[in-house]
Amino acid sequence: MTRQINKDTTVCISLAARPSNFGTRFHNFLYDKLDLDYLYKAFATDDIAAAIGGVRALGIRGCAVSMPFKEDVIPLVDALDPSAEAIHSVNTIVNDDGFLRAYNTDYIAIATLLAQYRLPTDRVFALRGSGGMAKAVACALKDAGFTQCYIVAKNKQTGPALAELCGYEWTPDMEGIDADVLINATPLGMGGGPEAETLAFTKEEVNRASVIFDVVALPPITPLTRYARTQDKTVIAGSEVFAIQAVEQFVLYTGTRPSDELFQQAASYSRS
Amino acid sequence: MTRQINKDTTVCISLAARPSNFGTRFHNFLYDKLDLDYLYKAFATDDIAAAIGGVRALGIRGCAVSMPFKEDVIPLVDALDPSAEAIHSVNTIVNDDGFLRAYNTDYIAIATLLAQYRLPTDRVFALRGSGGMAKAVACALKDAGFTQCYIVAKNKQTGPALAELCGYEWTPDMEGIDADVLINATPLGMGGGPEAETLAFTKEEVNRASVIFDVVALPPITPLTRYARTQDKTVIAGSEVFAIQAVEQFVLYTGTRPSDELFQQAASYSRS
Repeated sequence: MTRQINKDTTVCISLAARPSNFGTRFHNFLYDKLDLDYLYKAFATDDIAAAIGGVRALGIRGCAVSMPFKEDVIPLVDALDPSAEAIHSVNTIVNDDGFLRAYNTDYIAIATLLAQYRLPTDRVFALRGSGGMAKAVACALKDAGFTQCYIVAKNKQTGPALAELCGYEWTPDMEGIDADVLINATPLGMGGGPEAETLAFTKEEVNRASVIFDVVALPPITPLTRYARTQDKTVIAGSEVFAIQAVEQFVLYTGTRPSDELFQQAASYSRS
Repeated sequence: MTRQINKDTTVCISLAARPSNFGTRFHNFLYDKLDLDYLYKAFATDDIAAAIGGVRALGIRGCAVSMPFKEDVIPLVDALDPSAEAIHSVNTIVNDDGFLRAYNTDYIAIATLLAQYRLPTDRVFALRGSGGMAKAVACALKDAGFTQCYIVAKNKQTGPALAELCGYEWTPDMEGIDADVLINATPLGMGGGPEAETLAFTKEEVNRASVIFDVVALPPITPLTRYARTQDKTVIAGSEVFAIQAVEQFVLYTGTRPSDELFQQAASYSRS
């Protein structure tokens, strides 16, 4: 499967408290298919400063950053790309001869999709969630010029804080809200989770809207997007966010862009 | 060639200013043949403290240490095995759940060979050299109870220092020395070097001795050992030192001892 390792093989890693196997399988699959002299390995760590010191000392080319280190790494890098600066959160570090630049490819992916789907800026948005992914969505909306958005979040700390950060309005629930674009940035509908069958918005709310954007990537079709499709709504799926962010990360590390077909193969292989 | 990497694959590395490809090929070859879920990668570094910090933070299982870091790593580890303590030099670090223990498998290899060849302790030794490998040999001789040894070294700092460390006598050359066991721990006779054809001891000196030990591992037969064999001397070859030290390192990392046949295959593959 994997190419033969030698002393000059370029190394990329990920850092997380509890890594999944996806990244290691995804990147190594593409290295192999594209004949790139790279290897990828997920690492668990509880010392992010020493781990990033190791990235520098060992000349590790790329480093994905996951929970709970996405903010902790900010003082450890040399520069923030606007994508990471926008949301004060990092998921990707690129090491150019010892200079570490940090990116957030989730933000890049969401901004890309907002542009691709050409959503008019005069629409009213309702964004459910106030965690890291909700922050990426809200900031991408703000930066793309969308002015009317409700941050729908039960949490009375993070909800109002995110609304204030982006100049939006906070609401604990959808009562009295009439929104044309509904975005779910919570784990509601996520496969394997306790709320896998829960719709992030009610059917009535979906019926009144025209665009449904679900950030949940797995399963590729969530209860929310399944229902929205039956109602002929425009649907933006979390699998699209995931695909763009993963490919952007791959491109940042290698300079090589896999074809859509190859990406699909890699994603399918990595989930198996 | 190499097994498929996953998030739980155990990682071993080497640290050097200018790594060779041998270790990466050698260890990965054996991992593959023995079906061990390990990967090995050589790294160049110029920041040994941060690199060892990375070994800890990333949970890297094993770390070979080469020039110029063999002494620099001593304050960075948690414990010295007697093999490293004996010569104040480290070539192998083993990470047991965050506890770093440092070894010197060159010392282990030389001590093993001295025992295997059952050299009597009343013989007179002449050891040419005063570098890192000479130190490993001299200390192994001392620790094995050999009391009569000349340290033959032109260098007027390191020669006398090594002799003093082990309670031996320093001499700048072999003039007037009558030794029964001759040991070369210099690069004289090393393939590709400027003195590849040079005998570390003269033919007359070899003729007067009964045992010739050449620490040079490549080529497997040096000008010194070739001549010694024509004179029916007992020959201990550097390739034996190298084999034992490499296997001991492999065993320390994996707990698995490759067969002699498999070792020979791996060594041959790694040199190609």
